[in-house]
Amino acid sequence: MTKKQPKIAVFGGGSWATAIVKMLSENVNEIGWYMRSESVLDHIKQNQHNPKYISSVEFDINQLFLSNKINEMVSYADYLIFAVPSAFLKEELEKLTTSLEGKVIFSAIKGIEPESGLIVGEYFHKKYNIPYDNIGVITGPCHAEEVALERLSYLTLACSDESKAKLMSSFLKSRYINTKTSDDIVGTEYAAVLKNIYAMAAGMAHGLGYGDNFQAVLMSNAIREMKRFIKKVHKMKRNINNSAYLGDLLVTGYSTFSRNRMFGNMIGKGYTVKSAMMEMSMVAEGYYATKSAYKIKQKNGAKTPIIDTVYKILYENKDPKIEFLKLSERLD
Amino acid sequence: MTKKQPKIAVFGGGSWATAIVKMLSENVNEIGWYMRSESVLDHIKQNQHNPKYISSVEFDINQLFLSNKINEMVSYADYLIFAVPSAFLKEELEKLTTSLEGKVIFSAIKGIEPESGLIVGEYFHKKYNIPYDNIGVITGPCHAEEVALERLSYLTLACSDESKAKLMSSFLKSRYINTKTSDDIVGTEYAAVLKNIYAMAAGMAHGLGYGDNFQAVLMSNAIREMKRFIKKVHKMKRNINNSAYLGDLLVTGYSTFSRNRMFGNMIGKGYTVKSAMMEMSMVAEGYYATKSAYKIKQKNGAKTPIIDTVYKILYENKDPKIEFLKLSERLD
Repeated sequence: MTKKQPKIAVFGGGSWATAIVKMLSENVNEIGWYMRSESVLDHIKQNQHNPKYISSVEFDINQLFLSNKINEMVSYADYLIFAVPSAFLKEELEKLTTSLEGKVIFSAIKGIEPESGLIVGEYFHKKYNIPYDNIGVITGPCHAEEVALERLSYLTLACSDESKAKLMSSFLKSRYINTKTSDDIVGTEYAAVLKNIYAMAAGMAHGLGYGDNFQAVLMSNAIREMKRFIKKVHKMKRNINNSAYLGDLLVTGYSTFSRNRMFGNMIGKGYTVKSAMMEMSMVAEGYYATKSAYKIKQKNGAKTPIIDTVYKILYENKDPKIEFLKLSERLD
Repeated sequence: MTKKQPKIAVFGGGSWATAIVKMLSENVNEIGWYMRSESVLDHIKQNQHNPKYISSVEFDINQLFLSNKINEMVSYADYLIFAVPSAFLKEELEKLTTSLEGKVIFSAIKGIEPESGLIVGEYFHKKYNIPYDNIGVITGPCHAEEVALERLSYLTLACSDESKAKLMSSFLKSRYINTKTSDDIVGTEYAAVLKNIYAMAAGMAHGLGYGDNFQAVLMSNAIREMKRFIKKVHKMKRNINNSAYLGDLLVTGYSTFSRNRMFGNMIGKGYTVKSAMMEMSMVAEGYYATKSAYKIKQKNGAKTPIIDTVYKILYENKDPKIEFLKLSERLD
């Protein structure tokens, strides 16, 4: 008797969710795809692509089970991949009347749940009693846009239960996706969160007129800072230079398309936080991450000059020019 | 009685040599500057700038002791900073009739002496009996172009004799240059050499159509490979994520202006090695570095998939497309 293949569903309608559905479609016969917007779902049904994000990607509708009813989707799936913006996670989960018991939950969110200040894995564990063995993380370095172009990319699938990481890996691996598994769910998720803060810092530096030499020093300091921070949060043997940590930092910190870097760039150029948010008509994930990371580091005492600098600029209305001058003396 | 300030001279007429003279001119009353070309020296005397490299930088001629006689310059100086291309080092030094005894030699070359396959510090030690305590390294991340613009940059000064590293640091530090000292002359110099190979690899990947996701994975693997390589060559406690190692890798690997990356890009796009060299009318430092690094790794057994790949493409005429496909399976 062969084991029944578990059912998989992706939650979210953004570019990363869309990219994940595309990657799964290379291996999985039927993929559940939940998003709030009925009109977008209708568009996908009629036109085989997401009208708003990486719309060049064509789907085979017969492969998709589409729904805007979250309870229906949770009932349907055994493996749930969450890729909604962290700011909407709480609201989405509050719609649940269906139990999450026995479900395996992978986070592809790369953000902090703003109200609780928890990373997504912790949030599911603490608020929904999901055991850590049923919690996983999908992490890059991976821009959705390059998945759409089928440019070779690498994913790390982390779960303390290795068999689940391996299963998820087998769902996602394809001719343009290489995968690797890890048991460091806390570290990989924090790395995905913190890198957005460092991308903001890179954007601020750029906006302030610092150049490539400084950017290289900033990233070199950022990875050391990330290592110290994660070590305080969850001490275990990890190589911080693996793709899930350093690679993810670099792809975001060097991307001129990163929304976090763009947001930072505007701040560096003199926009207020409010006007930068309005201009972007969204809040960059790194904004919440900064507050939460700063609180955590205040408790655990990690030395985090870059996070501190970004926090002071975003939340204490400090002058980016002066704060970066001070920061530059603390970097080496 | 105060100690007499040692005399300093820079050897080389390229952009990095010119940038070093500029940095020194912030602190040092008189700087010796040697280069082969009499006409360039004449131009500098008459027009206060180097006509060929970072020519926006203006010098105060009264601060410079200019000469195209290497023996005169060696006699003049106590601290000798070499910034000639590695391919010309041997030839230049063969002109010497003056002794190097008692001189302190800093290498800013970032390359391997092609004939011997030695890094510059080793070359001076083995061929000219300079004790290691009198050998130092000046390393970035630092593009000369950004020094010209006075954009904040960081240098690492390495010497096993800490007092000499500190003295050199005091000569170079200014409002736009931060400095750090290190005792790892072998590691910092190898890092500066190897990063050119990785920049070539990054260029090849780009030329072959790989994207930013792959580039981040490549750099994340490159720093791990660099760590393994350097550890085999000279085992000591070092943080490979410090600016002199990771920062220098990043500034070159992500720079579209790097000659090594440009050279790699042409190879990736299908140029032969010969035609790429002709097109660039120069040989990128990484070309020699690849051969030498490959020989070293064959002896010491370091696992270096990226160096191996670049070697096979440059020296064994292998197809970049196929070699990068194989490499992509070895990266993670």
